[in-house]
Amino acid sequence: MDADKDPGLYYHDYLQLDGLLALQELESAKHGKAVHDELLFITVHQAYELWFKQILWELDDVLRAFEGDVLDEDDQGRVVSRLQRIVAIQRLLLEQIDVLETMTPIDFLDFRNYLVPASGFQSWQFRLIENKLGVRPEDRLLFEGAPYTHRLRPEHRAVVERAEKGPTLHDAVDAWLARTPFLDEYDFWDEYARAVRSMLDADREVIATNPNLGEDERAEQLRSFEKTIEQFEAAFDAQRHAEMVAAGSRRFSHRAFQGALFISLYRDEPALQEPYRLIELLVDVDEGFTTWRYRHALMVQRMIGAKIGTGGSAGAKYLLRLAERNRAFPDLLLLPTFLVPRSVRPELPARLIEKMRFRYQS
Amino acid sequence: MDADKDPGLYYHDYLQLDGLLALQELESAKHGKAVHDELLFITVHQAYELWFKQILWELDDVLRAFEGDVLDEDDQGRVVSRLQRIVAIQRLLLEQIDVLETMTPIDFLDFRNYLVPASGFQSWQFRLIENKLGVRPEDRLLFEGAPYTHRLRPEHRAVVERAEKGPTLHDAVDAWLARTPFLDEYDFWDEYARAVRSMLDADREVIATNPNLGEDERAEQLRSFEKTIEQFEAAFDAQRHAEMVAAGSRRFSHRAFQGALFISLYRDEPALQEPYRLIELLVDVDEGFTTWRYRHALMVQRMIGAKIGTGGSAGAKYLLRLAERNRAFPDLLLLPTFLVPRSVRPELPARLIEKMRFRYQS
Amino acid sequence: MDADKDPGLYYHDYLQLDGLLALQELESAKHGKAVHDELLFITVHQAYELWFKQILWELDDVLRAFEGDVLDEDDQGRVVSRLQRIVAIQRLLLEQIDVLETMTPIDFLDFRNYLVPASGFQSWQFRLIENKLGVRPEDRLLFEGAPYTHRLRPEHRAVVERAEKGPTLHDAVDAWLARTPFLDEYDFWDEYARAVRSMLDADREVIATNPNLGEDERAEQLRSFEKTIEQFEAAFDAQRHAEMVAAGSRRFSHRAFQGALFISLYRDEPALQEPYRLIELLVDVDEGFTTWRYRHALMVQRMIGAKIGTGGSAGAKYLLRLAERNRAFPDLLLLPTFLVPRSVRPELPARLIEKMRFRYQS
Amino acid sequence: MDADKDPGLYYHDYLQLDGLLALQELESAKHGKAVHDELLFITVHQAYELWFKQILWELDDVLRAFEGDVLDEDDQGRVVSRLQRIVAIQRLLLEQIDVLETMTPIDFLDFRNYLVPASGFQSWQFRLIENKLGVRPEDRLLFEGAPYTHRLRPEHRAVVERAEKGPTLHDAVDAWLARTPFLDEYDFWDEYARAVRSMLDADREVIATNPNLGEDERAEQLRSFEKTIEQFEAAFDAQRHAEMVAAGSRRFSHRAFQGALFISLYRDEPALQEPYRLIELLVDVDEGFTTWRYRHALMVQRMIGAKIGTGGSAGAKYLLRLAERNRAFPDLLLLPTFLVPRSVRPELPARLIEKMRFRYQS
Repeated sequence: MDADKDPGLYYHDYLQLDGLLALQELESAKHGKAVHDELLFITVHQAYELWFKQILWELDDVLRAFEGDVLDEDDQGRVVSRLQRIVAIQRLLLEQIDVLETMTPIDFLDFRNYLVPASGFQSWQFRLIENKLGVRPEDRLLFEGAPYTHRLRPEHRAVVERAEKGPTLHDAVDAWLARTPFLDEYDFWDEYARAVRSMLDADREVIATNPNLGEDERAEQLRSFEKTIEQFEAAFDAQRHAEMVAAGSRRFSHRAFQGALFISLYRDEPALQEPYRLIELLVDVDEGFTTWRYRHALMVQRMIGAKIGTGGSAGAKYLLRLAERNRAFPDLLLLPTFLVPRSVRPELPARLIEKMRFRYQS
Repeated sequence: MDADKDPGLYYHDYLQLDGLLALQELESAKHGKAVHDELLFITVHQAYELWFKQILWELDDVLRAFEGDVLDEDDQGRVVSRLQRIVAIQRLLLEQIDVLETMTPIDFLDFRNYLVPASGFQSWQFRLIENKLGVRPEDRLLFEGAPYTHRLRPEHRAVVERAEKGPTLHDAVDAWLARTPFLDEYDFWDEYARAVRSMLDADREVIATNPNLGEDERAEQLRSFEKTIEQFEAAFDAQRHAEMVAAGSRRFSHRAFQGALFISLYRDEPALQEPYRLIELLVDVDEGFTTWRYRHALMVQRMIGAKIGTGGSAGAKYLLRLAERNRAFPDLLLLPTFLVPRSVRPELPARLIEKMRFRYQS
Repeated sequence: MDADKDPGLYYHDYLQLDGLLALQELESAKHGKAVHDELLFITVHQAYELWFKQILWELDDVLRAFEGDVLDEDDQGRVVSRLQRIVAIQRLLLEQIDVLETMTPIDFLDFRNYLVPASGFQSWQFRLIENKLGVRPEDRLLFEGAPYTHRLRPEHRAVVERAEKGPTLHDAVDAWLARTPFLDEYDFWDEYARAVRSMLDADREVIATNPNLGEDERAEQLRSFEKTIEQFEAAFDAQRHAEMVAAGSRRFSHRAFQGALFISLYRDEPALQEPYRLIELLVDVDEGFTTWRYRHALMVQRMIGAKIGTGGSAGAKYLLRLAERNRAFPDLLLLPTFLVPRSVRPELPARLIEKMRFRYQS
Repeated sequence: MDADKDPGLYYHDYLQLDGLLALQELESAKHGKAVHDELLFITVHQAYELWFKQILWELDDVLRAFEGDVLDEDDQGRVVSRLQRIVAIQRLLLEQIDVLETMTPIDFLDFRNYLVPASGFQSWQFRLIENKLGVRPEDRLLFEGAPYTHRLRPEHRAVVERAEKGPTLHDAVDAWLARTPFLDEYDFWDEYARAVRSMLDADREVIATNPNLGEDERAEQLRSFEKTIEQFEAAFDAQRHAEMVAAGSRRFSHRAFQGALFISLYRDEPALQEPYRLIELLVDVDEGFTTWRYRHALMVQRMIGAKIGTGGSAGAKYLLRLAERNRAFPDLLLLPTFLVPRSVRPELPARLIEKMRFRYQS
């Protein structure tokens, strides 16, 4: 190359590798003896934080798409793409656990003491992700008898706690579902309730007359069946739904719940394909973090047994309890409870089917 | 090909594909209307059962290797290979959940009723795997208020229950660890206890004099530290270990526990590399099934929400509780609790180091 | 259970496990000595064939969806779901290679001779998949100097060769793309060509005037740039496209090529989101099989080195060449060559944008 | 926290997140308009480089273990652990391609021009890995008619080219295999040759007398069989082996080749279990990078079609050719060619078997 010429962009500079590759400093080396496996520990966690930043970048764009009164249809595609990417990244996060598990417990012990009291609980980016998704502070477990943020430095705590106030993806989705434009086109809710009740009547009849059941079994099955009926009746009723929201066992508004159910039941209609995919991806993302938290807890357990955590945390048992707890979309998880087979679901009015197609077909 | 000649083995015949590809019969078709997604449901579960048979084949060979008084060293390599294969298969089992999740809840509902009361709980091969690994009947959750086998057909129940009586991998490993040939070469157990106690004394001193702790914090940390000490002291003591075994919180004999700890602490020695790998793989296998049970439970939850299972089971919540419960090697999971850093572990006598090398080096 | 009662469906019977688990017969056992690893070999290949059947099931449904003159919009969603499932299954097929690789070469040798002359080339289901996707017989490599089907039994050869005649997914997609309803709404093709030419002019200007280039470099870059221009000009011209089709370097009709390009350029528009996803999934599926063929070839290489295959095939080298060769959608792979950045692509007429939205928004 | 107290290590500082999370600067933003997907592009490549550094860390430690005249047995275990970790990391590298593929070609085009002439070919860390493994400069393809390093900045080129001179893992393994301590214990090589020849004689007899072969087929099979014999005879002969080395078709010394074959044939013996695992892992690592290069090439193809690369490279076709080419251990890949079934391999002398056990067993 000619020295006078501008050689243009160089891979190494673009990726800022001078900076990047200088950020791995072993604590063990500072204490006198570099422990080989500590680099792996640093690399894995730095890679996590790079990916967390990327997830936040995608999430923020998703939240922007939901701003305003309408989720524009162009933006549905955009939201779906962003969420698909997050799901792909989650596979990577899981796979990273397998890499970390190539470190054995005794190799970890060789430098573990130098890290005290630092702790993965201080990953403020991960807490931020959870908050932007919509995990509620009141659903979180206490950590050492204190709020989940108490081990964070003030500036990080501030960022994390600000995100609790929103906007959250949960609330954006709640509002979006409640606006589902087809709910008022016909009496969806009444028709759905009628269909369910008639299905349940038939089911009860089957139990009542099944010649293969003994009397005790029949009684037992009928008792358990009443609970199913009860579940549905509570769901039909806006008033009782509101009570469940107040009690914390539901988060979506009743209207949003109807929207989600409508989209799930009629997802084959052109206008609902993309919304359904969006809902499905929210469940994927939620389940992805749940799985990751769980696998992460198993890994910690395997690494330290019943020892307490470096940050003084209650260790692996505590982490296992978090896995299921920190769900952002519990209501979407309940949705299948209220689905019915296609043979039972009410027919859509032809006029509505027409509306859910594209304009160019005329 | 000439009709008179023997064409030799043919791929299709070798794999018995005429038989294999005829075994997928849709219940929905028998009820009048084939549901597209039912084939996926059958294929996934048939693939599971093929792999379960394969895992049993490997497990049985592992159990054979452990027969007799000694695990021959040739056989250590064989056991390690078999377990590595099981771990590779477990990755596949996990991946199959992703495939099944391409079926949506409403697609499942379209044929779910035809399957009642069949249930995945009736996979007797999976129960057999758990039993051969060493999951104890007394650790299992009741299922519908009855033993976990009560929904099995008598011939399958018999197979599963026979396996409870052993031989189990857990017990074979317990006996093998207890025979660790180096334990009597020097006073490992005393030296280990001495090293731990001196480490703990130093740790307590750090807490007691740390100028950065307030008095309340210091008191709190010392209290929690006493628990750690207590844990170790209980472990040192054969009598108290025996009590824990009697109470069900430990399963290995004290001698096996010592063997496992010795192998873990000195795993770099040539003679311990393969035994350590074996122990590690047992943890991998145990963790692999735990992860699979958990992911499987999440998948069921996603498919049916809070509905009850096809077999009348309590559904997804019940499955989630099983994940951690059905562990075969809980004591191996506790092992890291009692490890110490290499800087603390007692030096091995030179004579013993010599013994743990290969004979050809002289 | 009461003997008089119908216990209903039983998991073991539903999955026909009596049949399924009896289909693994070791050739080595027939020759006198069961070789442990042969079961793995059978299990992996039976699992493959189960999944191949499942893929065919999905593909056939996709082909049905494309029947008739129009791909109904409901059916777009259905096609997308089916293809997503195939992609998920492909991940599994890849993972199965890792499982098979837990068998070492010498373990394979212990039973390999018993399998001669059976060969994976005789998997007629896999050939059927390739043909239904649209791999052309004329693109296939000869196998032992004969057509790829010559080692198949007549009834299997008949099935595979019949599928060459179609319907194939390639041709269905070709016809579907050619029908893209927006192509005649305005002069897309002219506008696109105009935009490309103006972009290329600007690019050439940059090279011509770049002060950092020496004269030789400039001349070299301009020469190579002419090839890019030539590529585009050939693509613009229906006549030259037809010649490329005749010569075999293109398969889509020019109209289908335009459709695919239009969808890719404007995929953010609501009506194009699902078609774009469909196109992307076709590339995923094609790439998935390419990757699988490649990994499979590497695995064979690792197992037998430079030995010839059990069926007398030219072995691993031959398989490596197949990987890229048996592509079903080469034109989709070329598509990115002709894309331009959003800043360059022609604006859509407002009227057309309107048409590509849903009817309910009015 | 009390301001006077030293709070100890903090997760965010330990991982240097202030630095790490500030290293992602979008070129598109500098040109006036941030393109959303550029961050993904940066993140993926930064994560790659972090992992490349980690792989180099492991490789360097492996090379250190091979220093000196003997690979100490403790160090065998260490080498195996390091290589297992590299294999686990390679799974991650592969998975990252799936994440990058969530970016579509047009999204890439929106910022691709800003990156010119930077190119993935400038990842000097990846070239360094290849060189430390032992890829030879003379085996590399030219790149734009120039050596593979010509696009590197002088300081990076120097690092990469220095590594060509070694030490390389290939050469270390070559020397280690040549020292296999059992080769002189008995006349392994002669016994092996005798066993092979007698096996080949029997095989030829089978072909010569097989009543199911027509005369043409028989002649054809015998001709092809002569090639197999020829292959073995060339391998037996140190002189001809040396010629193959000179001609570049072999890299290991004849003695190393014998060592590798011995270890592979008798890998069940205790003293050979770990060496065999080491060999197997070298093949895993080599295959892992081959697969990654191939998948990476497919991804580039999918992203840019037949366009030329940002760095002016010949694009995807070129990359596809590299995949197989840049192998570090081609001789290990050939090894299975020369294996024989256990039923054919020569018996080991009892005295030697004894030597390959551990000393403590007496």
